[in-house]
Amino acid sequence: MPAPPRPSIHLLPGHAKRLRHGHPWAYSNELRMDAEAKALPPGSVVRVLDVGGEALGCAIFNPHSLIAARLLADDPDAVIDREFFRARLEAAVALRARLFDEPYYRLAHAEADRLPGLAIDRFGDVLAVQANSAGMDRLLPELLAALDEMFSPRAVVLRSDSPARTHEGLERSVSVASGVLDGPVEVHEDGVRYLADPVAGQKTGWYFDQRSSRSFIARLSGEGRVLDLYSYSGGFALRAAAAGARHVVAVDRSEAALALGERSAELNGVAARCRFVRAEAFAEMARLAADGERYDVVVADPPSFVKSRKELKPGLRGYRKMTRLAATLTAPGGYLFVASCSHNVEPQAFAEAVRRGLADAGRSGRVLRAAGAAPDHPQHPALPESAYLKSLTLRLD
Amino acid sequence: MPAPPRPSIHLLPGHAKRLRHGHPWAYSNELRMDAEAKALPPGSVVRVLDVGGEALGCAIFNPHSLIAARLLADDPDAVIDREFFRARLEAAVALRARLFDEPYYRLAHAEADRLPGLAIDRFGDVLAVQANSAGMDRLLPELLAALDEMFSPRAVVLRSDSPARTHEGLERSVSVASGVLDGPVEVHEDGVRYLADPVAGQKTGWYFDQRSSRSFIARLSGEGRVLDLYSYSGGFALRAAAAGARHVVAVDRSEAALALGERSAELNGVAARCRFVRAEAFAEMARLAADGERYDVVVADPPSFVKSRKELKPGLRGYRKMTRLAATLTAPGGYLFVASCSHNVEPQAFAEAVRRGLADAGRSGRVLRAAGAAPDHPQHPALPESAYLKSLTLRLD
Repeated sequence: MPAPPRPSIHLLPGHAKRLRHGHPWAYSNELRMDAEAKALPPGSVVRVLDVGGEALGCAIFNPHSLIAARLLADDPDAVIDREFFRARLEAAVALRARLFDEPYYRLAHAEADRLPGLAIDRFGDVLAVQANSAGMDRLLPELLAALDEMFSPRAVVLRSDSPARTHEGLERSVSVASGVLDGPVEVHEDGVRYLADPVAGQKTGWYFDQRSSRSFIARLSGEGRVLDLYSYSGGFALRAAAAGARHVVAVDRSEAALALGERSAELNGVAARCRFVRAEAFAEMARLAADGERYDVVVADPPSFVKSRKELKPGLRGYRKMTRLAATLTAPGGYLFVASCSHNVEPQAFAEAVRRGLADAGRSGRVLRAAGAAPDHPQHPALPESAYLKSLTLRLD
Repeated sequence: MPAPPRPSIHLLPGHAKRLRHGHPWAYSNELRMDAEAKALPPGSVVRVLDVGGEALGCAIFNPHSLIAARLLADDPDAVIDREFFRARLEAAVALRARLFDEPYYRLAHAEADRLPGLAIDRFGDVLAVQANSAGMDRLLPELLAALDEMFSPRAVVLRSDSPARTHEGLERSVSVASGVLDGPVEVHEDGVRYLADPVAGQKTGWYFDQRSSRSFIARLSGEGRVLDLYSYSGGFALRAAAAGARHVVAVDRSEAALALGERSAELNGVAARCRFVRAEAFAEMARLAADGERYDVVVADPPSFVKSRKELKPGLRGYRKMTRLAATLTAPGGYLFVASCSHNVEPQAFAEAVRRGLADAGRSGRVLRAAGAAPDHPQHPALPESAYLKSLTLRLD
């Protein structure tokens, strides 16, 4: 029995052009949301038609989401099966294999890898999957079949607990879709071994996005004293220690993350030079400043201060204050790394908040490097707003 | 006989705040340009006073320049002598020594190194100096004394031929201030040896600013076919060839630059895999496209298309067209690097021109990396407009 024909959704007049020029989304107010469209199950694969009935491609569709249609392929009748995912993932892996020597990276980064709303992190033979669109959630069986075929993973973890899923009307849960996971996994990065927990850790258990910046900071650290604020499991701290830093302090609020960091420090033979402190970063910065502590390198890579647009003003004040406190802890001639992962914060606004924070601290300096996420987190050219991560590395006078 | 007291210049009401918050310049319309001020020789070292007579620091002053005062030091009476330059240069060298294994880099980058209007490139024991402000031009004897004392250079070249000097009323010339230079010098970069000509080459003879991007492109090149447009002396081309690229074509209009590139290719034992083509890039791209040529990596790093604000629109059209042609020459799954060194072009405007160029070529892709200049070209936090260089590396479908 042949499958029923793929349903179609219809763009309203004047809204086809942006998609024809490469934008991967149609918003709900750009589509004819008639009873038929509204009745489609969230996550359905549909053909996208312009007002003249010409097909622009196929998409995953969610009538309840502001981003109603996300393009999957140019061919409106492309079969979205295991083979489809295999082809997309092979292109994604080919890029990562060029970039990195070992299989520890973000394997798929959503629209930029033509897999809308899907993120996959690879920890050797363990994969952590985030399906953040209703379409990807429905297509998980085909995706998992492709992953099994390509990677024979020891375990696949479904991190279906991202807040983004609520916009798509999806439930939130964490599960192991296949295989067995009996503890943390290793992450190898430029000779350093980290431990990460893809089941209970934050997001997928690891932040691959700051890899390039960890390399840069490790280079700058030399044999200095390093303070890693919002350290999570010691991402910057351990790279600096492995590169020779003589005294490294990692600060985080999560007991579990710090415990993994301590075990990682032992794995790398640098535990004697690392201290893990459970504390809230602002309070700890104030305390260290009152004690007159100074560090050759200070890293402040906090969770998002601006989770919605209405938090922009207080969030920018937060980055300014964070910079002031962190600069106060930076020795003359030392290095300060500050980051924001808030996609609501433009790079210029972040740079201005940092500039003001420096002035508040009475410190001058120069910006050595402005960076985004590592290249296994590529950006779709038509979605510049998806470039969420920005960081500045400064040398202070 | 004591030196005459240092002259003072006076900020008009309301203009001290920006300088107090770390901005390093006062514009001519922010200063009391009375007969006394106008009579000061261009390049004089002055005290900068607010309306209440409080000193904000000392500056170099040019009554004929829009950027009339450039702060040198917080102390209004700081002695600006060999020792002053030595202290500034020691801080600058300490940073570069942390960043690089060998002494080939931009040693001083103007305001960001607290040496306003001064650029120095270091080629081992040869230094190339650009004094682009009247103040630095007047202070050259003290600067050269400090350079001699610190580096005992084989030669110091004064590249006093930058167009920026005309804004300061300075003449343009090239000379060897000390030592002897009897031909090109070497540049060492991550194991590759280049040749550069600090006397007759463009700018100081070499573009240290793209070093980080050359490393990234070399990594992506693998054993592929590489096209390096606006290659100058083979900057990207030779890094790719040394990393294993099987066929590299370098295109430039300058016979002299290409000749150095060819000699460098021999020095590195990769001449058999490199071809140097003298041509105008747009015409050569059109010719190669007509021949159906495709490359795994295409690099397009042109001279500025926007030398003044009024060239912005045609310049952006130029970047768009360049991207279209370069994308056409990029194989499916290949990498495209495009750059702009126009400080008049904002990163967003450049990214939009690139996005349009890709669409014009009917190509899709993702941005792997958005980068500025290498960290030996730091930025003053209050002068974001001095971040002239921006590049995008894309992987195309």
